[in-house]
Amino acid sequence: MKLNYQIILEYDGTHFNGWQYQKNGLSVQNEVEKSLKKILKKKIKVIGAGRTDAGVHATGQSANFEYDGKIIKDKFINSFNYFLRNQNISLITIKKKNYKFHSRRDAKKRIYKYFISNRIGSLVLDKNRSWHIKKKLNVKLMKKAAKVLEGTHDFSAFRASSCGAKSPIRTIEKSSVIKKGEKIIITFISRSFLQKQVRSMVGCIRLVGDGKWTSKNIKNLLKSKKRSLCAPPAPPYGLYLTKVIY
Amino acid sequence: MKLNYQIILEYDGTHFNGWQYQKNGLSVQNEVEKSLKKILKKKIKVIGAGRTDAGVHATGQSANFEYDGKIIKDKFINSFNYFLRNQNISLITIKKKNYKFHSRRDAKKRIYKYFISNRIGSLVLDKNRSWHIKKKLNVKLMKKAAKVLEGTHDFSAFRASSCGAKSPIRTIEKSSVIKKGEKIIITFISRSFLQKQVRSMVGCIRLVGDGKWTSKNIKNLLKSKKRSLCAPPAPPYGLYLTKVIY
Repeated sequence: MKLNYQIILEYDGTHFNGWQYQKNGLSVQNEVEKSLKKILKKKIKVIGAGRTDAGVHATGQSANFEYDGKIIKDKFINSFNYFLRNQNISLITIKKKNYKFHSRRDAKKRIYKYFISNRIGSLVLDKNRSWHIKKKLNVKLMKKAAKVLEGTHDFSAFRASSCGAKSPIRTIEKSSVIKKGEKIIITFISRSFLQKQVRSMVGCIRLVGDGKWTSKNIKNLLKSKKRSLCAPPAPPYGLYLTKVIY
Repeated sequence: MKLNYQIILEYDGTHFNGWQYQKNGLSVQNEVEKSLKKILKKKIKVIGAGRTDAGVHATGQSANFEYDGKIIKDKFINSFNYFLRNQNISLITIKKKNYKFHSRRDAKKRIYKYFISNRIGSLVLDKNRSWHIKKKLNVKLMKKAAKVLEGTHDFSAFRASSCGAKSPIRTIEKSSVIKKGEKIIITFISRSFLQKQVRSMVGCIRLVGDGKWTSKNIKNLLKSKKRSLCAPPAPPYGLYLTKVIY
């Protein structure tokens, strides 16, 4: 019987074309598979829980792979990270799982966080890590707007035209906005998201924050199901896949 | 009568030789003066509140300069940051001050924060921004050790041999340790600090955290006044000057 291992990864998405294997450009999945091959001396296929887009970061991406042998945790983590030391990917932990475990299909909740830095001064310590918006945003209105997205809706207007999901219906368990100093942090929890859904939702919430939209616009957008009416998606570099819950 | 302006700066200290003007290598002070010269068309001398070492960051460095003319806040911030767009320095805000205001001499409290990432996996998103310590640290013991440093003491053992301060006596108002997930954050508040004092204190608190020292060692070190008995200073890249209070 095959053994099955879950890995938790952190990465800086800036220079990647996203999680998934790409013909052109660097993918996180590919670099992870290359590192595993170096350690385990065989070709390993890795399944990721979230297909993060180009530029999107992760502090808690979850993935799994099958492997017959025994793995010694700390030694494995050190070797894995040694091979990826110049790749902006870090293995946080590894756990042995039931042979049936599938990181994508078995995920019950995915948590994404989006960071906005709302200040005049350009970003230094958070360059490529947060969306810089100079105009003062109204957080109270953003909180209200975020709540509109909670629940089960047809998110057709919020998904990329290239999205391959069969159904546009998703249930957002949590969509909330908090302010910490100059940072505005938007958290979304759902079993799964459509392609570009999170960034599209953030784009709309931002328009409410700067007074161009009201919550009513978001309600109407949901009803319309028209992608063309959606706000421009927020840039990828403010987005983090922070946790996958099983 | 001369006008006097206070500026608040953020910078990533990684590639700087510190705040202060250096014959060799990049200094924050020098880059700030160069940007001011470009905007104000004259040579400007900037006084900084904290002489951060090479590699040390700031989210709230305070500085001031004299200038005769009027400054329009938002326009000035944008121009200043435009000239420093490739220098990892950002002007957060600028305020008109009394002509007597002196950012260094008038400072009543300086707040420094030190970040440790206590986990096995190497750092990606916090590379050059936090001290990576793999061995599990005992935060409870670190909290106790930090408290020993509070109050008025002779910190001779905690200052660099090159420290030019007349007196080694300093009053630490706050020395505290908190844990947030895998991060350990150590906060120090004092009117002023000796050279390398903060990093030396962190080095000692860390030794308590990993079981090599107890709080008693820190008490004895204070009494001894011997630099040679101090723990190695913590690396600069975990340290942030976060606020200067007047």
